[in-house]
Amino acid sequence: MTYTLILLRHGESEWNAKNLFTGWVDVELSDKGRAEAVAGGEQLKDAALLPDVVHTSLLRRAINTANAALNAADRHWIPVKRSWRLNERHYGDLQGKDKKQTKEQYGDEQFMLWRRSYDTPPPEIADDNEFSQAGDPRYADLGDEMPKTECLKDVVARMLPYWESDIIPDLKDGKTVLVAAHGNSLRALVKHLDGISDDDIAGLNIPTGMPLVYRLDEDFKPTVKGGEYLDPEAARAAAEAVANQGK
Amino acid sequence: MTYTLILLRHGESEWNAKNLFTGWVDVELSDKGRAEAVAGGEQLKDAALLPDVVHTSLLRRAINTANAALNAADRHWIPVKRSWRLNERHYGDLQGKDKKQTKEQYGDEQFMLWRRSYDTPPPEIADDNEFSQAGDPRYADLGDEMPKTECLKDVVARMLPYWESDIIPDLKDGKTVLVAAHGNSLRALVKHLDGISDDDIAGLNIPTGMPLVYRLDEDFKPTVKGGEYLDPEAARAAAEAVANQGK
Repeated sequence: MTYTLILLRHGESEWNAKNLFTGWVDVELSDKGRAEAVAGGEQLKDAALLPDVVHTSLLRRAINTANAALNAADRHWIPVKRSWRLNERHYGDLQGKDKKQTKEQYGDEQFMLWRRSYDTPPPEIADDNEFSQAGDPRYADLGDEMPKTECLKDVVARMLPYWESDIIPDLKDGKTVLVAAHGNSLRALVKHLDGISDDDIAGLNIPTGMPLVYRLDEDFKPTVKGGEYLDPEAARAAAEAVANQGK
Repeated sequence: MTYTLILLRHGESEWNAKNLFTGWVDVELSDKGRAEAVAGGEQLKDAALLPDVVHTSLLRRAINTANAALNAADRHWIPVKRSWRLNERHYGDLQGKDKKQTKEQYGDEQFMLWRRSYDTPPPEIADDNEFSQAGDPRYADLGDEMPKTECLKDVVARMLPYWESDIIPDLKDGKTVLVAAHGNSLRALVKHLDGISDDDIAGLNIPTGMPLVYRLDEDFKPTVKGGEYLDPEAARAAAEAVANQGK
């Protein structure tokens, strides 16, 4: 008996395409991103990997990826759960800024520290910054937990309680669980599942729109470390492209 | 203190456009239907009528209408609940048949009886009919409740338990509730809310893609009978067009 968990990173967004730091800014999928989501759903259908429940972040690029993928897989009708704990990393004051310009302004070392260090968050975003989510009704209940910036360590800390409280119970019920989320919230989950060190997680890139399947044992540990992509060749090429962003 | 309930009939589907009986057959929205859904969501946003929770049927034309409308209203992130009890009327053996041909084959009287009588269902659909939902996993838990045909009276009988068990509690919590469903499941609900007689409900048509807002008193009775459309003129013209279907 194994549990089945499927991770799906949202397709390309309008700001991925423009090379801007996005974080919690709620941008739309690009046409390419919608096509990626549909293709991901078709992969699930072809593999007969049919989710019984979907968990998403509160951001439309993940929500609409889930919607399009599930529609393509004929599983649009399954129960839906959402949480801010699956949101992308909050990029603080970098939100809305051009990645290339930021790199030129602050230098390679600072840029890579903010992008890839485990525990160095960017500067906090001001509440009156146009890209702040202060006052957004979907986060009204967060109180002190509302971030103004996050490093990956912070994402792990706020994502794991949801894994324990909401995702594991669905797996225990024997459900095939789809998690539609973001580069960094999924890296946080994979770090936990595969026991990746704080240093090594920097090298892990998850491609967009490609279902990553974990079969978990009774302790919720992967039977195959790193999980399995339904289309491994395409996933490898795409992960390399992600790693090259901002270069 | 009033409760706010918003009803939204799905936009045009591919089979509405082809003039086929659809019922529980799970067809896609047409391009026009998607545009209607977006326009309905923009009406909600312009009126600052912001749903806190959405209830949908298990059929993609209602689910995708809700998704597109909520995305347009910036409320894509709200909790989602779904039930087969909000499905369209099951059209029995008529599912998949051309409305005009059916009318010619059976005559005006029989045709109108099946379409508009309160308590005369069409013939049952056979399990091996290509348009049957027998064996569809989304209905696996229904057991004896799985319909093979329905009249509007049957829809009222299976819809009302969900109104009581799931929608009223959300209203009691003070939530603005969006119900994205179908011509006949919404007629069943409106019949109950407005206390419309078994005879008079035949004359009620609900237009597609146009939010219909009910403010309900403490007994969940409408403060304005029939509710209010956000764009009353457009709703009237559209309802007349629905009434003319199959003529």
